[in-house]
Amino acid sequence: MHEVFDLKLYLAERKREVEAALETSLPPPTGLQRSIIEAARYSLFAGGKRLRPILCLTAAEVVGGDSRPIMPAACALEMIHTYSLIHDDLPAMDNDDYRRGQLTNHKVYGEAIAILAGDALMTEAFELVARLQDAPGQSPDRILRAIRILVKAAGYRGMIGGQAIDLECENLETDIATVEYMHVHKTGALLSASLEMGALLGGGSPEDTARLRRYGHHFGLAFQITDDLLDIEGDAVEMGKKPGSDAARNKKTYPALLGMVRSKESAREHVEQALQELAAFGAAAEPLRALARYLLVRRA
Amino acid sequence: MHEVFDLKLYLAERKREVEAALETSLPPPTGLQRSIIEAARYSLFAGGKRLRPILCLTAAEVVGGDSRPIMPAACALEMIHTYSLIHDDLPAMDNDDYRRGQLTNHKVYGEAIAILAGDALMTEAFELVARLQDAPGQSPDRILRAIRILVKAAGYRGMIGGQAIDLECENLETDIATVEYMHVHKTGALLSASLEMGALLGGGSPEDTARLRRYGHHFGLAFQITDDLLDIEGDAVEMGKKPGSDAARNKKTYPALLGMVRSKESAREHVEQALQELAAFGAAAEPLRALARYLLVRRA
Repeated sequence: MHEVFDLKLYLAERKREVEAALETSLPPPTGLQRSIIEAARYSLFAGGKRLRPILCLTAAEVVGGDSRPIMPAACALEMIHTYSLIHDDLPAMDNDDYRRGQLTNHKVYGEAIAILAGDALMTEAFELVARLQDAPGQSPDRILRAIRILVKAAGYRGMIGGQAIDLECENLETDIATVEYMHVHKTGALLSASLEMGALLGGGSPEDTARLRRYGHHFGLAFQITDDLLDIEGDAVEMGKKPGSDAARNKKTYPALLGMVRSKESAREHVEQALQELAAFGAAAEPLRALARYLLVRRA
Repeated sequence: MHEVFDLKLYLAERKREVEAALETSLPPPTGLQRSIIEAARYSLFAGGKRLRPILCLTAAEVVGGDSRPIMPAACALEMIHTYSLIHDDLPAMDNDDYRRGQLTNHKVYGEAIAILAGDALMTEAFELVARLQDAPGQSPDRILRAIRILVKAAGYRGMIGGQAIDLECENLETDIATVEYMHVHKTGALLSASLEMGALLGGGSPEDTARLRRYGHHFGLAFQITDDLLDIEGDAVEMGKKPGSDAARNKKTYPALLGMVRSKESAREHVEQALQELAAFGAAAEPLRALARYLLVRRA
């Protein structure tokens, strides 16, 4: 009998590991700088799924590596993700008052501290990756390559570039190619980088690392499309935000440009392609397979 | 006869070198991400003195190293400095419309793009340091240590922490110890780091690297005190801003807390201490000696 992989249990256990490590990644908020540490911790512990760190740790194991020593790099990904959410929520950007049902950073700490808390999380992320230098078994050359993967994914060639495109497109007619380009940068780049960094630091071959990066690319697109679909079909309580908010803000979504049917088809195709990239891997890739399949039935 | 070191000529030549390198450090603004590249370049080329890169390059030479291969690290310091100016000028922070006589980033590109341009410059700075990996002669271990020096100086333990303290102190009674603590973090940390990174990457011994870091500490404090004095005594045209603007904004300055006479004494003492740290070095340290002395007669 085929044993069913328990994704929910897997994600819960990994999330607990990641959160224990995140807890020690910033000092307690004391002293004169306490306001930004407090603000940074507020958003870092505001109920994230820890998807990026989990992808990173899992990728290391998929290529046969030990995930424990690379936990700081996994935490770095969550810090980069959190900083991007804090800055994206600012009044000058998306102007959101709530995220995951909680007040956004600037609503609690004010805009100035929110900007600085984001800056601090981003800066500190690079320390966390560089810190692998102190652990045995990592070559400094590989750590530097991991840092460059993170810069590329987070910077203007990745996430920041995607956010800039998003802002510029809000009031323009946009085609599906532009929307896809935007998502590949805004969301996909950091998801891909999570897998690529994990595979690299886990000692994966260039081929295996590239496979996991491509898995991340397709996973990221399927993730975005299903996110757009949820915004139309989802349940407000499970999502922690109101359905229909994308349309109300004139966000360019897949359903708006392709329609519901073709959007669902496209999500399914990307999940298929993600799964194909995993064909070379054994049981250790089961969490990634389950995650990809889950996107097609996700409700939050 | 004692040959007089021509500081002005030295700074002009080094500045030209740095700006040529900065020119290639970001791509031309084309494609969908052009707005943030354009905004980042606007502030990167808005007339900075390039003090931090120059300190970095000079420090490498003081310890007997070759400054040319570490130019990317020098450029990284200018990017971090520029990002901090863009974010500090934002309406939620210091709300400045002009800097060095030019419109601030958000006045030209809007707040959203200004925030992202700052984010992009900061992220890319780490790529520039990590890129030394591709040049011959640097050990990856040393590059990682340089990255960690930069994180510490730029992050919540340094510059960002200092800015947070500055914001919180604006409407509080503050003593001189708190003001000094604030400046050591807000301005001093990155100046010290510029010298420390240069010395480290130039192959300096731990002792020499520590000496140059301490030079940077005292130079940074003398720089800040003379900056405060200039704000009271300076000439609007040479400074590119109105004198008296600190007092008008209730900024806690050295003259406000110590008086003019004791502030000048303190600046002189820090310059003396900076010069003492250079006693072990020969002619290669002449630019740093001249720079420290210059603070006592600066007019802009």
